[in-house]
Amino acid sequence: MEKEKGILFVLSGPSGVGKGTVRQRLFEHNTDLHYSISMTTRQIREGETDGIDYFFKSREEFEALVEQGELLEYAQYVDNYYGTPKSYVTDMINAGKDVFLEIEVQGAIQVKERFPEGVFIFLSPPSLNELKNRIVNRGTETDDLVKNRLKEAQNEIRLMHAYDYVVVNDQVDHAVEKVQAIVKSEHCKRERVENIYKKILEDESLC
Amino acid sequence: MEKEKGILFVLSGPSGVGKGTVRQRLFEHNTDLHYSISMTTRQIREGETDGIDYFFKSREEFEALVEQGELLEYAQYVDNYYGTPKSYVTDMINAGKDVFLEIEVQGAIQVKERFPEGVFIFLSPPSLNELKNRIVNRGTETDDLVKNRLKEAQNEIRLMHAYDYVVVNDQVDHAVEKVQAIVKSEHCKRERVENIYKKILEDESLC
Repeated sequence: MEKEKGILFVLSGPSGVGKGTVRQRLFEHNTDLHYSISMTTRQIREGETDGIDYFFKSREEFEALVEQGELLEYAQYVDNYYGTPKSYVTDMINAGKDVFLEIEVQGAIQVKERFPEGVFIFLSPPSLNELKNRIVNRGTETDDLVKNRLKEAQNEIRLMHAYDYVVVNDQVDHAVEKVQAIVKSEHCKRERVENIYKKILEDESLC
Repeated sequence: MEKEKGILFVLSGPSGVGKGTVRQRLFEHNTDLHYSISMTTRQIREGETDGIDYFFKSREEFEALVEQGELLEYAQYVDNYYGTPKSYVTDMINAGKDVFLEIEVQGAIQVKERFPEGVFIFLSPPSLNELKNRIVNRGTETDDLVKNRLKEAQNEIRLMHAYDYVVVNDQVDHAVEKVQAIVKSEHCKRERVENIYKKILEDESLC
């Protein structure tokens, strides 16, 4: 029987919307997804671990990897680079395994150009006011950075049309359930499984 | 805020695949779906109730309703008519409620012509042999009818391309979980919610 390929799921959305929290909760329940760890030049935050939350690199290291074509996508956001190592994703997909990316909006748009068959999920704040509260409460940003992030968020919400799904992060549990439903239902998409099940027709001995 | 319309979900597939069992189990867990009861001229089976499992009608009654344009779809299968009363479905959708139809394949194709925005789920047997076993074990069909049903099933599997999703009914619980995931994820489809969430952009007072 023809083997089904894995699916690339991309969770993205404005900075501060809660992508990391949704991703963490999702992976507590779901062992069939393979998380692709991003690479970044931003400073490591308290509680984060290199090689688990991100691969933390210097600007020089990151730019060298871009030159070598080793990144599936990369983006500069505020003053930092974020990117996705390429080979991990393509190897998994071809082996029939699902890959899950949690990345910034600029990166997601690049991945869509290279992997239009991926499934793109936009994690949206319930409102811009709520997003502002979350960024301010994180307590790691200056007033100017908060302002920049909100402007960026508005621009990013305008890119929603490039996505397949919109999940509002009003409550983390609800958002996680929706992402899980998207993962499950995408595996039932007719265009993904049609060729496999048409094999049923080859069994003509019955009639 | 603009109100989201309801979604029409159509569960269909070959006779004997287990559509009724999946539908029953689904409705034990899910109260947000509104089941549209079909109309049929086939004989009532043991354990079935008129007005709950189907509206059971004579051929004469059924044909009169077709003439009056009161059916969203209807089909003749083996020697019986099956159909869907129209007004219930359209009223629910417009009121923002989801409607769930469980119908034969010929009916589903008609509904697709009239409601292309519906979500069409093909419930597939794991194999034709398994389908044969299920029909034979039901014990209500003659050998000739079993043969007819299997030929019909092969023709119906060829119509799979008209559907949005394929759910294999290998285990009822798995099939039900997949249908539930489809229902949840369809409400996250970007094209359904984009206009609603773009309202977020109207809140410009922050920047």
